[in-house]
Amino acid sequence: MTAQSFSPGLDGVVATDSTVSWLDEENEQIVIRGYDLIELARNLNYVDVAYLVMYGDLPDAESADSFCAALKTGADVPGDVYRLLESMPKDTSVMDALRTGVSYLAGHVGPGLLADTSREANSAKGTSLLAQGPVIAANAYRALHDLPIVEPDPGLGYAENFLYMLSGERPDAEALEVFDRILICYIEHEMPNSTFVARVIASTLSDIYGAIAGGVASLKGPLHGGANEAAIAMMLEIQEQGGPSRAEPYVMEKLANRERIMGFGHRVYMRKHDPRALFLADYIDRLAPRIPEGRDLAQIYRTVEHVMEREKGLFPNTDYPIALLFYLLGIPVPLYTPVFLCSRIAGLVAHVVEQHEDNRLFRPRLVYEGATGLTPPDAPISAG
Amino acid sequence: MTAQSFSPGLDGVVATDSTVSWLDEENEQIVIRGYDLIELARNLNYVDVAYLVMYGDLPDAESADSFCAALKTGADVPGDVYRLLESMPKDTSVMDALRTGVSYLAGHVGPGLLADTSREANSAKGTSLLAQGPVIAANAYRALHDLPIVEPDPGLGYAENFLYMLSGERPDAEALEVFDRILICYIEHEMPNSTFVARVIASTLSDIYGAIAGGVASLKGPLHGGANEAAIAMMLEIQEQGGPSRAEPYVMEKLANRERIMGFGHRVYMRKHDPRALFLADYIDRLAPRIPEGRDLAQIYRTVEHVMEREKGLFPNTDYPIALLFYLLGIPVPLYTPVFLCSRIAGLVAHVVEQHEDNRLFRPRLVYEGATGLTPPDAPISAG
Repeated sequence: MTAQSFSPGLDGVVATDSTVSWLDEENEQIVIRGYDLIELARNLNYVDVAYLVMYGDLPDAESADSFCAALKTGADVPGDVYRLLESMPKDTSVMDALRTGVSYLAGHVGPGLLADTSREANSAKGTSLLAQGPVIAANAYRALHDLPIVEPDPGLGYAENFLYMLSGERPDAEALEVFDRILICYIEHEMPNSTFVARVIASTLSDIYGAIAGGVASLKGPLHGGANEAAIAMMLEIQEQGGPSRAEPYVMEKLANRERIMGFGHRVYMRKHDPRALFLADYIDRLAPRIPEGRDLAQIYRTVEHVMEREKGLFPNTDYPIALLFYLLGIPVPLYTPVFLCSRIAGLVAHVVEQHEDNRLFRPRLVYEGATGLTPPDAPISAG
Repeated sequence: MTAQSFSPGLDGVVATDSTVSWLDEENEQIVIRGYDLIELARNLNYVDVAYLVMYGDLPDAESADSFCAALKTGADVPGDVYRLLESMPKDTSVMDALRTGVSYLAGHVGPGLLADTSREANSAKGTSLLAQGPVIAANAYRALHDLPIVEPDPGLGYAENFLYMLSGERPDAEALEVFDRILICYIEHEMPNSTFVARVIASTLSDIYGAIAGGVASLKGPLHGGANEAAIAMMLEIQEQGGPSRAEPYVMEKLANRERIMGFGHRVYMRKHDPRALFLADYIDRLAPRIPEGRDLAQIYRTVEHVMEREKGLFPNTDYPIALLFYLLGIPVPLYTPVFLCSRIAGLVAHVVEQHEDNRLFRPRLVYEGATGLTPPDAPISAG
């Protein structure tokens, strides 16, 4: 097989068919179950869109009510999950805590339901996971920082509850609106690495908890979900080194050293706009006055964007505005990637449902470039 | 993209290059770092081969000593891992416990070493995981069955310790020899689903714990590592339904109902022999006298094999003899897939090391077969 060519990273290779979503590059549109993601984000709320992603159609009023009710019930995580979070070493990352929590919850489902790969069973387990994600993420951060556990408040909506558990306080309307729209922007995006991982795992007919835990592991990576944390780290570094006037020289120096600027470009969009970034950027000036350094950071944001377009022809991807919006909303930086993951659970669930319904085990080949024909010694080397 | 063709399951698609291993179909040989796996299994022990897989060359006497020492040190898992296993609901599967345990251990590494994707750091973390796998697997089973924890005995070798923790007793020489060879047969196998998952996760530059946890999730699947448990379940069912004379009608009925017989055939070998199955089958008659029903099960084994070859032209894959050998060795069935995984950790580590050293993010595409052009309602549906 040494002569065979391949596309590193499976770049441009089609790995499956799907009815969940599609990056329509030509029209610069993210198609979600037939709808334009940005129109969904403008008009609906996260729970509506999560239902759409997971079930294939928008809910009617009755289905919407039961879905909201199921999310409230599902958020009631077993008490030993809180103990688990409290038992973790304090420098555990929230993503690792979330991955462990998702994995641990599999044991609470019961073997029958756990092994059931039907659409109904997967959707039910997926709804629980969607409800549990924010509870685990927020409380992992709290437990790791010796803050008291904040259990979900069944009187609050999904996004409201999420922000409430993050801060311990009920969010204002502006924060809630922006946070909900960010959750929608993160919900589903065709076939990024984490979605691919979830589908590949699910293709062994392994259960949805394992598939989602694999997705968490993937999304933690600095080249994937970790990009939003890297993007705000850069903006804060520029602010610390002198503020807005430092932005242009900072980027020029990085580019001269061939260092990567996080939050720009995307394998699929390449040099085109990420419609989510365009949509969310509008909120930056609105939220900037919420914190003292907000206007400086907004200026840094714009300068870096301008220099990257001028020098590299690259435009922001969605992680770039979201990183700053999360900061302006007061969300602790170690929660940026976990919040992304929590939103994306809906997309991951949809792909696991689809994979299990029409399955073919993923089992590619590789090109071997090592030695052949070696002969081992005729007796053990180590003590074993 | 709707017109694009694709290969479901990436069947026949080359996903990466590698120097770790290769299924040489033409010569029906499993090439591991240049050596024939079966020759390695005949001549060396698991620890030698694990070193070879992870480091690329067989160890000299000194490296072999330090590797053995590192495996003994690494097996000393943090005490809260035992508490974690004891906290799990008793019907948690051992694979899920193992996945959770691997994920949890990431928090004990410290953020600096955890994020380090160098060959040295990955090999060190990988060696710890290789040492910890058997401790977690054996004690997960024990904790879930209310048996006392058995900590590893630093006076015993790797495979000996593994068997000791499984049973609580020191194994005899025959059991140790067969178990060690089974571990070698399971150690590495080119690009099965779990190895692919580990590489795909690692390609986000996520850490090795996440990549291996994803591998555990994959290997749990009935179409992958779960096949050995399914194979022994079938042999025991035939024994219960009447013993060896029931074997032929049992298989014929299953085939008539188009039901799958687990432990036969393999995507890559297809209708050819799995050399590991040929090698290990020789041990069945040797171990059969160890348990009262051993000779019956060996007869059932041979009859099913014969009928499958006659009716379908399919030969056993490695899971088929290993399932029976594990049973003859007295290993509890829920540990079959976890033991497979523990051996395979060496292979997964080797692939993560390789992926991190020459990385390209995996990010394939999909063919969208859903709707387009839908318009959402202009106001939220649910309460959010």
